[in-house]
Amino acid sequence: MDDCVFCKIIDGEIPGNVVYQDENVVAFLDANPVSRGHTLVVPKKHVEDIHSAEGMQYMWDALVNVSNAIEEAFDPEGMNIAQNNGEAAGQEVFHLHFHVTPVYRGDELEINYNRSELENGDEIAGKISEHL
Amino acid sequence: MDDCVFCKIIDGEIPGNVVYQDENVVAFLDANPVSRGHTLVVPKKHVEDIHSAEGMQYMWDALVNVSNAIEEAFDPEGMNIAQNNGEAAGQEVFHLHFHVTPVYRGDELEINYNRSELENGDEIAGKISEHL
Repeated sequence: MDDCVFCKIIDGEIPGNVVYQDENVVAFLDANPVSRGHTLVVPKKHVEDIHSAEGMQYMWDALVNVSNAIEEAFDPEGMNIAQNNGEAAGQEVFHLHFHVTPVYRGDELEINYNRSELENGDEIAGKISEHL
Repeated sequence: MDDCVFCKIIDGEIPGNVVYQDENVVAFLDANPVSRGHTLVVPKKHVEDIHSAEGMQYMWDALVNVSNAIEEAFDPEGMNIAQNNGEAAGQEVFHLHFHVTPVYRGDELEINYNRSELENGDEIAGKISEHL
């Protein structure tokens, strides 16, 4: 896509700190990292989000391999993988990407999920499973 | 694993709101949902986290399909996918699982990523790519 910053990194039009690439996938450092080693795993094919990602099983291998490489490189205490779909969910670049973010000792995890107790589970599960 | 709550749901020993399963994967509602339709996508094989997840490409299809089903069921404004590794990263059940969490209009996204500008990108990228 002409105006997609990730496509431009993939095409070499703008620089990125690429840690890995093969014919299907590229992984590069996030330009605004949450922590040391924060890496994005991105399909080379431009799709907007997870809803258009059928057939991209190669992304799984890349996620596992990049996570293991960050583990080996920096020995963090933990690691978050996150992928956002839609502006309301925090997506900023509309080219599918997974954040792989190491967590180090002393990092404060500022995620407040606001969790509740499940109610009407049967009804909700039924509505989803109708589509599966 | 004997003391794993997700293995017990998979084995039917304790109840869960299952929305999908096949020979490799099960998806069920989170018992402490962040939002309506919050679903976990889980491999039936017990592995602790992403670092032991080589060869589980079937998880990709499940993630895409469950995300699409939640979209079709509830028409949320956005969707987050998240997977935590290690207690420091917020992992609570030590059986690999992905959270698929719809975001609705009016939900406040309380994720504060504390992002900075990337420094020493070449050095950091080099340390990771050594392992890839």
